[in-house]
Amino acid sequence: MRAMKKKELALGEVYRLLEPGPVVLVTSARGGRANVMAMSWHMMVDFEPPIVACVISNRDYTFGIVKATRECAINIPGVELARKVVACGNVSGREVDKFKKFGLTAAPAARIGAPLIAECFANLECRVIDASWAEKYNIFILEVVKAWIDPSRKNARTLHHCGRGVFMVAGRRIKLPSKAK
Amino acid sequence: MRAMKKKELALGEVYRLLEPGPVVLVTSARGGRANVMAMSWHMMVDFEPPIVACVISNRDYTFGIVKATRECAINIPGVELARKVVACGNVSGREVDKFKKFGLTAAPAARIGAPLIAECFANLECRVIDASWAEKYNIFILEVVKAWIDPSRKNARTLHHCGRGVFMVAGRRIKLPSKAK
Repeated sequence: MRAMKKKELALGEVYRLLEPGPVVLVTSARGGRANVMAMSWHMMVDFEPPIVACVISNRDYTFGIVKATRECAINIPGVELARKVVACGNVSGREVDKFKKFGLTAAPAARIGAPLIAECFANLECRVIDASWAEKYNIFILEVVKAWIDPSRKNARTLHHCGRGVFMVAGRRIKLPSKAK
Repeated sequence: MRAMKKKELALGEVYRLLEPGPVVLVTSARGGRANVMAMSWHMMVDFEPPIVACVISNRDYTFGIVKATRECAINIPGVELARKVVACGNVSGREVDKFKKFGLTAAPAARIGAPLIAECFANLECRVIDASWAEKYNIFILEVVKAWIDPSRKNARTLHHCGRGVFMVAGRRIKLPSKAK
């Protein structure tokens, strides 16, 4: 990861990346074959250790991989990757190697077998801790076991999917006196 | 709702409001007493009928009300309500009537007992369809049974919480050729 200029992010800070609701790229791997999937249906469940719930449709190639390997990575793209994010969402990993086809760089993770996407400004290595709602709701409960961020891009402009290829790009930030974590 | 200039929103369009990840205000009521809670931990689970998962901490006053009444409303504020959103997050409904204290207008819902917040640009009336993960993860599964929107504010600038009172304000929109719903 050093080659990607990323640094470890304290696990207690992970919620600050996912809580605003960005589109993410989920990477998974099985039998030497890796896949990438665009995902917007995720939410934080707890702060530390960071627990994340997400929906991976059982129609997606990723579903079977995550269910079998019980791990995946959540990679957060900035707006500059918008076209690649959409491209990943438009085809299935059953048919193509999306890393190769869309020019994404697979970087090794520290704690899981799935690769990380070097071009994303943050990468979260996750283990599945509960798949008991995978059949009923396509929901997986993940624990983030290692997190990486490019320190020069902490306020990267994320993408937020509004449906049908319309994305809201993260705008200005405001700070208000809050007791919230 | 007519007085609020809101129109019914097709249930199949609801995901387009929640998928980008806005902070929402959850309203609930029991025994003639209503409450408002700020919430960022939510995600879509299905398109139509719209199914939403959300985390309501068992430390929050809202938890017991939603568990008992099995209904609540998700109200989506624009950036102009930022101070009121933070104010709602800073105190508990056990202590104050937040509608009164923060000048929010309670409007009657069509299908549920909890009131809607007139000042929010969209309101989603929800029923709890699964509370079996309420104890374990504080997760409730909701079905949106009726949705309202102010048609003049379809692209309202939503707030996205980045932790500790920092909010990202929804920025520009881009559209890319996508097969995504």
